Amino acid sequence: MKNRIFNFNAGPAALPLCVLEKIKESFINFNESGMSITEISHRSKFFDDVINSAVLRTKRLLKLDDSYHVLFFQGGASMQFCIIPMNFLHGNKTADYVNTGTWSTKAIKEAQLQNKKIKIIASSEDKNFSYIPNNIHYSHDAAYIHITSNNTIKGTQWSKYPDTGNIPLIADMSSDIMSRPFDSNKFDLIYAGAQKNIGPAGVCLVIIKADMLKNIPDTLPTMLNYKTFVSKNSMYNTPPCFAIYTVELVLKWLEESIGGLEKMHEINKAKAQLLYTTIDSSDFYSGTSELKSRSLMNVTFKLKDEETEKLFIQKALENGLGGLKGHRSIGGCRASIYNATDYNAVKTLTDFMKDFEQTYG
Amino acid sequence: MKNRIFNFNAGPAALPLCVLEKIKESFINFNESGMSITEISHRSKFFDDVINSAVLRTKRLLKLDDSYHVLFFQGGASMQFCIIPMNFLHGNKTADYVNTGTWSTKAIKEAQLQNKKIKIIASSEDKNFSYIPNNIHYSHDAAYIHITSNNTIKGTQWSKYPDTGNIPLIADMSSDIMSRPFDSNKFDLIYAGAQKNIGPAGVCLVIIKADMLKNIPDTLPTMLNYKTFVSKNSMYNTPPCFAIYTVELVLKWLEESIGGLEKMHEINKAKAQLLYTTIDSSDFYSGTSELKSRSLMNVTFKLKDEETEKLFIQKALENGLGGLKGHRSIGGCRASIYNATDYNAVKTLTDFMKDFEQTYG
Repeated sequence: MKNRIFNFNAGPAALPLCVLEKIKESFINFNESGMSITEISHRSKFFDDVINSAVLRTKRLLKLDDSYHVLFFQGGASMQFCIIPMNFLHGNKTADYVNTGTWSTKAIKEAQLQNKKIKIIASSEDKNFSYIPNNIHYSHDAAYIHITSNNTIKGTQWSKYPDTGNIPLIADMSSDIMSRPFDSNKFDLIYAGAQKNIGPAGVCLVIIKADMLKNIPDTLPTMLNYKTFVSKNSMYNTPPCFAIYTVELVLKWLEESIGGLEKMHEINKAKAQLLYTTIDSSDFYSGTSELKSRSLMNVTFKLKDEETEKLFIQKALENGLGGLKGHRSIGGCRASIYNATDYNAVKTLTDFMKDFEQTYG
Repeated sequence: MKNRIFNFNAGPAALPLCVLEKIKESFINFNESGMSITEISHRSKFFDDVINSAVLRTKRLLKLDDSYHVLFFQGGASMQFCIIPMNFLHGNKTADYVNTGTWSTKAIKEAQLQNKKIKIIASSEDKNFSYIPNNIHYSHDAAYIHITSNNTIKGTQWSKYPDTGNIPLIADMSSDIMSRPFDSNKFDLIYAGAQKNIGPAGVCLVIIKADMLKNIPDTLPTMLNYKTFVSKNSMYNTPPCFAIYTVELVLKWLEESIGGLEKMHEINKAKAQLLYTTIDSSDFYSGTSELKSRSLMNVTFKLKDEETEKLFIQKALENGLGGLKGHRSIGGCRASIYNATDYNAVKTLTDFMKDFEQTYG
């Protein structure tokens, strides 16, 4: 489509064009309300329908049973990093954390800032977080085990989730939620900043098992207590209405246009395969993650030197391919190929990569 | 404009139509970026320009000097209720709170939940919060004094702010920020959920004096520490980009179309006067707040009984006048006439009120 680029941003990231068009079309008069979605009351039936549909779609897509609550927080995953230990880690209890990169490290830091007892039971820091550790030994008395399902910055992803038995499993799924089917019943808490796979910045999806609510102290600040969000259907105070509305539209697209997570996963695998094959079949590009731990969402790679990388990113943008710069903390290149970035976008990118190699290789 | 109603919602509330049209028009291709505002990176120049402009417009409109920082939080005013005592109330320090309604009560509750020492130095609870107390005696050693500038639910508003000398003055201005000029230099912290006067739900404007940062402990969770937002220009993590963008457009409208806060205040006074005069010149409608404490933003009134009120609200909606139901906690009627609700909307409402009285009075 003219006036649009192929968007490989890591987050905020591409959204399905049909979702953007739907928002645009109904922006001045949402659902015949005579108001914009940004102007309707969160206590109205108009908004109840939106949030309830977003909850139901999440439950259907992830095959969640009735023991799960679906919530919408503000503050992103970073706020969850601090809320989790606050809610679940008390007295002599210890929690296990697996450190697979920048975001895991931040989650660990927030628990430590609160003087909570945690144990880093595995880490891939020894190899610059280029892999997902395996053969992990969990503590049998941990309050919970925390993992990061996909590492946006390093480009690694868990391919198989651990079995933690009775120990609650908590995952930050910000960068791969809704990108593939998985056994959601293994998890006791899942959270995901929306701005990568399911919506715009400004809302964080939280899925929590009812059992997790039992030991939360009543003395927590109201806005930092999961029980508040459960008892008020995420509307103790005014929720981020526009962001939740957009999430609902993205989930509708996933269910009704894509056809669910199995179909989405097939598309995502094909996209990643095309891109990794292009990288691996050339000496000009090199992947930065270990093969077995590669992410289907964030494809990280390097060129021979920084200067060539800079030229690559610049020429790509001139050709309508944006967001290919690696995270400012590590440099290099990164193509984030979330759900809304379609096969054609990746094909255009790989064609460009081949051309660029021919010219500058 | 056809397909639009006159919107008297208390929040989320009406936005200027020109702002909504601007968002709509550039929604698929923001600023020739080839991306939607919901898809651009918060680390890009595109977004830097947006947030920096929102900060500068806030500083100009409120005549803030360089000792103030302008920040954007998530979580609404309710999150500030808990962050404020966490940041500023330590050891043997006590804070003073003035209780003027539901939101003040919640702010007080959050300080108490944390076992912080506070003193309620004045309250209008004795008369169902229908007035703003005066002749208030402040503690000379308080860590801060907290007030709520406008009480959305009860329809009262401070007409003159107190002089608290060296004691830091903190105000929740969620429902009247940017509605009138005031001496901003009296305040050490101002916060305002955007969804009433300056934008959509999902962002909270915070204005903080640099001096306030001195005694904040480093042990606070990162996302609950004002210093994080100051040092990272509100972008420690992904900010609510769309909401901040909309705030910027509303402030631009205030500066460039309305002409600043003096002009806005003149319009707001004229709107409120028209509505209060209509109420006062009739025995059919009665205002619920004391005359001297009446809000220019939220006009609360009653009819003879609940049944008539219900009919009034229903008939109003049939005539394109929405959002006139009082808050669910107190009933009655309420017309919120924030900045974006123009004189013509209020004129249409008062004409309807007269007609309704003729038919059902």
